Amino acid sequence: MGKENFVEQIADIEKDFPRWYTDVVIKTGLVDYGPVKGTMVIRPYGYAIWENIQRELDSRFKATGHKNAYFPLLIPMSFFTKEAEHVEGFAPEVAVVTHAGGEELAEPLAIRPTSETIFGSMYSKWIQSYRDLPVLINQWANVMRWEKTTRPFLRTSEFLWQEGHTAHADEAEAVEETMKMLGVYKEFAENCLAIPVITGRKTEKEKFAGAVATYGMEAMMKDGKSLQAGTSHYLGQNFAKAFDIKFLDKDGVQKLVYTSSWGVSTRLIGALIMAHGDNRGLVLPPVVAPEQVVIVPIASKKPGVLEKCEEVKTALERAGVRVILDNTDNSPGWKFNEWEMKGVPLRIELGPRDIEAGKALVFRRDTLEKAEYSLDGLASTIKELLGTVQKDMLESARVRRDNRIVYADSVKGILDGVENGNFVKAGWCGCRDCEDKVKAETSATARVYAEGEHSETCAVCGKKAEHTVIFARAY
Amino acid sequence: MGKENFVEQIADIEKDFPRWYTDVVIKTGLVDYGPVKGTMVIRPYGYAIWENIQRELDSRFKATGHKNAYFPLLIPMSFFTKEAEHVEGFAPEVAVVTHAGGEELAEPLAIRPTSETIFGSMYSKWIQSYRDLPVLINQWANVMRWEKTTRPFLRTSEFLWQEGHTAHADEAEAVEETMKMLGVYKEFAENCLAIPVITGRKTEKEKFAGAVATYGMEAMMKDGKSLQAGTSHYLGQNFAKAFDIKFLDKDGVQKLVYTSSWGVSTRLIGALIMAHGDNRGLVLPPVVAPEQVVIVPIASKKPGVLEKCEEVKTALERAGVRVILDNTDNSPGWKFNEWEMKGVPLRIELGPRDIEAGKALVFRRDTLEKAEYSLDGLASTIKELLGTVQKDMLESARVRRDNRIVYADSVKGILDGVENGNFVKAGWCGCRDCEDKVKAETSATARVYAEGEHSETCAVCGKKAEHTVIFARAY
Repeated sequence: MGKENFVEQIADIEKDFPRWYTDVVIKTGLVDYGPVKGTMVIRPYGYAIWENIQRELDSRFKATGHKNAYFPLLIPMSFFTKEAEHVEGFAPEVAVVTHAGGEELAEPLAIRPTSETIFGSMYSKWIQSYRDLPVLINQWANVMRWEKTTRPFLRTSEFLWQEGHTAHADEAEAVEETMKMLGVYKEFAENCLAIPVITGRKTEKEKFAGAVATYGMEAMMKDGKSLQAGTSHYLGQNFAKAFDIKFLDKDGVQKLVYTSSWGVSTRLIGALIMAHGDNRGLVLPPVVAPEQVVIVPIASKKPGVLEKCEEVKTALERAGVRVILDNTDNSPGWKFNEWEMKGVPLRIELGPRDIEAGKALVFRRDTLEKAEYSLDGLASTIKELLGTVQKDMLESARVRRDNRIVYADSVKGILDGVENGNFVKAGWCGCRDCEDKVKAETSATARVYAEGEHSETCAVCGKKAEHTVIFARAY
Repeated sequence: MGKENFVEQIADIEKDFPRWYTDVVIKTGLVDYGPVKGTMVIRPYGYAIWENIQRELDSRFKATGHKNAYFPLLIPMSFFTKEAEHVEGFAPEVAVVTHAGGEELAEPLAIRPTSETIFGSMYSKWIQSYRDLPVLINQWANVMRWEKTTRPFLRTSEFLWQEGHTAHADEAEAVEETMKMLGVYKEFAENCLAIPVITGRKTEKEKFAGAVATYGMEAMMKDGKSLQAGTSHYLGQNFAKAFDIKFLDKDGVQKLVYTSSWGVSTRLIGALIMAHGDNRGLVLPPVVAPEQVVIVPIASKKPGVLEKCEEVKTALERAGVRVILDNTDNSPGWKFNEWEMKGVPLRIELGPRDIEAGKALVFRRDTLEKAEYSLDGLASTIKELLGTVQKDMLESARVRRDNRIVYADSVKGILDGVENGNFVKAGWCGCRDCEDKVKAETSATARVYAEGEHSETCAVCGKKAEHTVIFARAY
């Protein structure tokens, strides 16, 4: 089948990555633009990915002792001013409700851009004693940040996310929680999304407004740019002070708690698309793919073909595989293109000759390879193959990324590196001027500190390096 | 154990039902008041119930062919004016965003009170041909309706719900969908919430703003008042006309679709509380209870007691039971009260003598009965018992309700009926004046038509009755 069979044309990934991205998200039915500028409608195919992401993350949050709750969407504007850095960071992006129920409100209300303040106000009420600690709560919610430039999944005025907010009796435990959840994110990104990530601390400039320290995980997209796929913040006592969250400790002394917060969002769907996609469209890892297998009957009107397809489908469903049988009137070639574009990990082709030979042809979306497998025990073969695809996708993404990490010892070196689609490791003295200079001259930002690496000198000013930083252009 | 052991005092359900309700929701940790008037924080114990409700409903929606999606929170105000009845019904309750990103918006945006309009605007874009139909989409979301008087779960400015929005090629199919989802709700309410419900059509006055016909399900609370626990709307072509949702039919003619919408919300948690609760607090049906069983060790420091409790816990978990072992320092009596207040369906008491005798004492929260069971095969005994509790709770709620349905043939009769905490069936001529008169004189409203019942005359005006209506005071 040639290009002419393509259901929908998508731009060439090598020639126009941004248009390729837009084509893919729209034409595969993941998302559509909402009527209000900057908003998106997550369509069923996209939302099914989000449901799979939620299921995987939620079980991990619960396994680490967290419970879900739901806090109000609307936050009094005055709450934001209680933490100085926080208000500076978020106030400019806030959407404000000024009227409700036909009347002007006495105090304008912010639609949550993040919920540290409202969690803080409730924690101050709920936490009285050391016995009440730790408090480990997560919520799945929509948030709103009014952005000038938007792109589906990557940056939209409203998006879906989860935000964990925890409170602890001491600093060590709060730091441990911060790092634990960063670890949960990393394990999830690698094992579920098949996306290798680099985790590390962010610079002061890049940290969350109100945090003591922000840790991020960065994923390389196919254009070499970085996508911040999740963050975990150690908030120290900043919000405890702002909202007076105190507890009576064992020693009879009133103390402020230490808090953390951490979140990932529907951005992860954007990461999936750009980490794995190709010129045929999406390539989805089995763990989060809405459909893991599509069965395409060949010569479906021949006796026995559809029956056999149904039989295979039932066997796969019983084995816990998410499977769809495409028995529409479209041609096999049309179906191949359609489901390849949608990124279904495996395709089973079944026609009269295959059935006679007791075999099925199986196509792997990730490697584009076809192989024959016996119809006997096909369900367990497929289950195993899905596991292989999942692992191979992570491995090939890791190789792709590792080949594109370079070192530089000058701003010019950083520029060359990112121009060629690399992550660039470079020494940094720790001063804001040097960080700003890199951004001004290369459009790259400090993503995270490269943990465990030691550079001698700052690539910008040549003074002693405090950190090795990963610089990249970023989404 | 006497009243003095009670962790928290709750008002007497017979003497002050409203205060009993407030005490229960707050003191059991289901919910708290948010900082903005009329908002609520759904705390982990309350949210766990909602998660169970979601899981049960979501699997039913998917089994009937629906897919989930997510539509934007913000809707242009102009959308509401496109459907005349709809704007009249919802505009007065809308919360409005007028500023965002530091600027005044060109058009004010409504926070969705319900999403027919924004679904309609997207459906008009997505639906082109009869091949695109039916469209069967649900979303789980927060919505906002600015209410003057609020009560946690029952009426809050923001609440969580699901809203299904479907589009069909013909009227019959859209009506069938409307009735099918009403049936799904009823089956769910009865089998999962153990709440018997009466389903039926609503009067013109009580119907959804913009619907052709609204069908509701009404549940009797312990004070004899009715709670509308869910609604399913047949919208005809009202929204198709307003948003120009057209398709090219098989016969080559452009036609308007027919739509339906249906929803249930966190109100259901309020229904659970008021349908089953008693003077000790919550009584939760096993299917939606966050914890189905609590194990309370007796003389827990005696050798072997905690080990045996852990063993029973593990066996129950393996059997798929949600179980908690309370090994805190509190006294058994304190724990009994605490978990009874929280409505855990079964309590297992295990002490040295029980263990020696190879037995466990099991307390049923619904009947307050205790019985001894062998430790051998306790997990399967408990599973069976949970099933019995679930069925018995529905049955006793049904008996309670059926004993409180009366007939009346005058406004005075309706008043007497509702004053005594009954649902009252009465003939109605169908005119708005008579309906208004009942409300003015009895505070009762027409809940639903009593399907299959035929009254001769209107209880208000004495003219020929068109319908038998169930009147009740309602939440």
